[in-house]
Amino acid sequence: MKWYNKEGNLNEIILSTRVRLSRNLKDYPFPVRLDENGKKQVCALVKDIFLKEKEDLNFIEMESLSDYEAVSLTEKHLISPRFASDGEGGALILSEDESVSIMLCEEDHVKIQIIEPGLSLLAAFEKANEFDKELEASLPVAFDEKLGYLTQCPTNLGTGMRASVILHLPGLAASRSISRLSSTVSKLGLTLKSVYADEKEYIGDIYQLSNQVTMGISEDMAVQNLNAIAEQIAQQEKQAREILVKDDRVIDRIFRSYGILKSAHMLTCSEFTKLLSLVRLGAAQGLLNIPLETLSTLLIEMQPATVNAISKRALSRSERDIIRAERVREALK
Amino acid sequence: MKWYNKEGNLNEIILSTRVRLSRNLKDYPFPVRLDENGKKQVCALVKDIFLKEKEDLNFIEMESLSDYEAVSLTEKHLISPRFASDGEGGALILSEDESVSIMLCEEDHVKIQIIEPGLSLLAAFEKANEFDKELEASLPVAFDEKLGYLTQCPTNLGTGMRASVILHLPGLAASRSISRLSSTVSKLGLTLKSVYADEKEYIGDIYQLSNQVTMGISEDMAVQNLNAIAEQIAQQEKQAREILVKDDRVIDRIFRSYGILKSAHMLTCSEFTKLLSLVRLGAAQGLLNIPLETLSTLLIEMQPATVNAISKRALSRSERDIIRAERVREALK
Repeated sequence: MKWYNKEGNLNEIILSTRVRLSRNLKDYPFPVRLDENGKKQVCALVKDIFLKEKEDLNFIEMESLSDYEAVSLTEKHLISPRFASDGEGGALILSEDESVSIMLCEEDHVKIQIIEPGLSLLAAFEKANEFDKELEASLPVAFDEKLGYLTQCPTNLGTGMRASVILHLPGLAASRSISRLSSTVSKLGLTLKSVYADEKEYIGDIYQLSNQVTMGISEDMAVQNLNAIAEQIAQQEKQAREILVKDDRVIDRIFRSYGILKSAHMLTCSEFTKLLSLVRLGAAQGLLNIPLETLSTLLIEMQPATVNAISKRALSRSERDIIRAERVREALK
Repeated sequence: MKWYNKEGNLNEIILSTRVRLSRNLKDYPFPVRLDENGKKQVCALVKDIFLKEKEDLNFIEMESLSDYEAVSLTEKHLISPRFASDGEGGALILSEDESVSIMLCEEDHVKIQIIEPGLSLLAAFEKANEFDKELEASLPVAFDEKLGYLTQCPTNLGTGMRASVILHLPGLAASRSISRLSSTVSKLGLTLKSVYADEKEYIGDIYQLSNQVTMGISEDMAVQNLNAIAEQIAQQEKQAREILVKDDRVIDRIFRSYGILKSAHMLTCSEFTKLLSLVRLGAAQGLLNIPLETLSTLLIEMQPATVNAISKRALSRSERDIIRAERVREALK
């Protein structure tokens, strides 16, 4: 079972939480200055530390992945897009449930990433911290008294921590509150941005809220700060939804979207994402009787490269639209 | 049970058959020259003939109908639009199942109309003929050796018979064959025209094929002629559908349409008609397991004034869209 199949705190609004720690080994230059051999050495060292004790972790060399497998990992936010396209010499340590993903020799030597369902910042941070402790107990890590953890990109210097939550905000989007919200949170050192878009527009009302400041702030403070703001946004979203679902036209759109997802024989990713957003709103508000985990799973697994990965081949777009529709119908039966 | 709830011959393509006989009483001027009193006399005379023997016939004075009840009768093709708006002094004899409707003092003194499900021209003509015989056995009817039955409108002179079938032609519409077909049948003395339209276009791919020639041809010949051509069109439509349902996009549209009809909470008449057409195609081709009678019933009963008539009040457009969606969901459960 993947992490996104599981229930989460506040998951009617908050889909997931992610915490990432960037670390570099003191005795090696940053990956950008390592040749393939150097990268392999770093990967092997870190692999030995993490894999010797934990049974559910797998070590995956980036070269072993097909294009769509690598892109599928970015769709699942397990690796960065850059790592998918340019990961030579790098590797990924991935847990069975995909809640732990550790990029080796991406931008930094080690990026420890924990994903949890719902709002779960503290737990995710603690879990990431355990991996960090294990790493630091075994190998000297680049740390400066003044600057904190050293990272290749200066924006990560200090805590080396990025934390984020994925929110579903159809209520605030409908009340045109997103841009105001976005500028408010940026004053608090956070960023709010849309996760999904097609050629024309942002779609699905799914947003990522993440911390930007890594210096002059402790990890605990950063996590508490983000947590408080996420809860506040969730509260505003709840109120906006109460108004939204009083509108007959919105109710109609929710039920139609469900009807189409249950019956279509072709679904583009873009249409699917729009419809799923409305169905998720309906399920969260108790209008539709569908477990939210089912919808979270579909949202992740029906992205293009992940559909390829599940089908184990590079499908054409129209083949994919047919398979997507089949799987969605099956999941919503 | 109404006639449209019943199964019919070839009803995967032919929804219904209608035969109408125009007759006038010899001893009275045409209705246009009758005052209200004169019309009432004619109505009473004919009422006595038909209602004395048949138990399932009702006599309805046009003045007794509300606007939407009268318009509902036109939506069901039981009376002419003109009679609905300007029927003072006139009356309607209507059977319980609505297969027999006799307009009294519309354009002519008596218009006997029989509707049957599917292709059933001969049976409908014979049934109409029985009423005519009954009428002519009781009252002298205006008939001229040379001209045949005398009618107010010269286009009905002769047999005074109009026969028509309602066809569902999504296959021929998709292959853009309708205008060619229309000009072909007009050379054979028939007319093909679209039944439903919204502000912008013809919708639903529902067509009426009717005879135009009433002089120099016997009723039998006219009926046989129309029957043969209707069968031929049905054959062409079958072939066109075979090609159509090989297209994945059409399959997708059929299933989506079904999904929307089963789940929407608001349906305009125009959208409903378009969706129903696709669902009917799916049901006729065995893709969807829905009795065709259910769909024929919906197509008739979900027209605007008929929704009002079923709800027994003049609804606003948006109230009607909500009630229409409710009833459609219920019917397709």
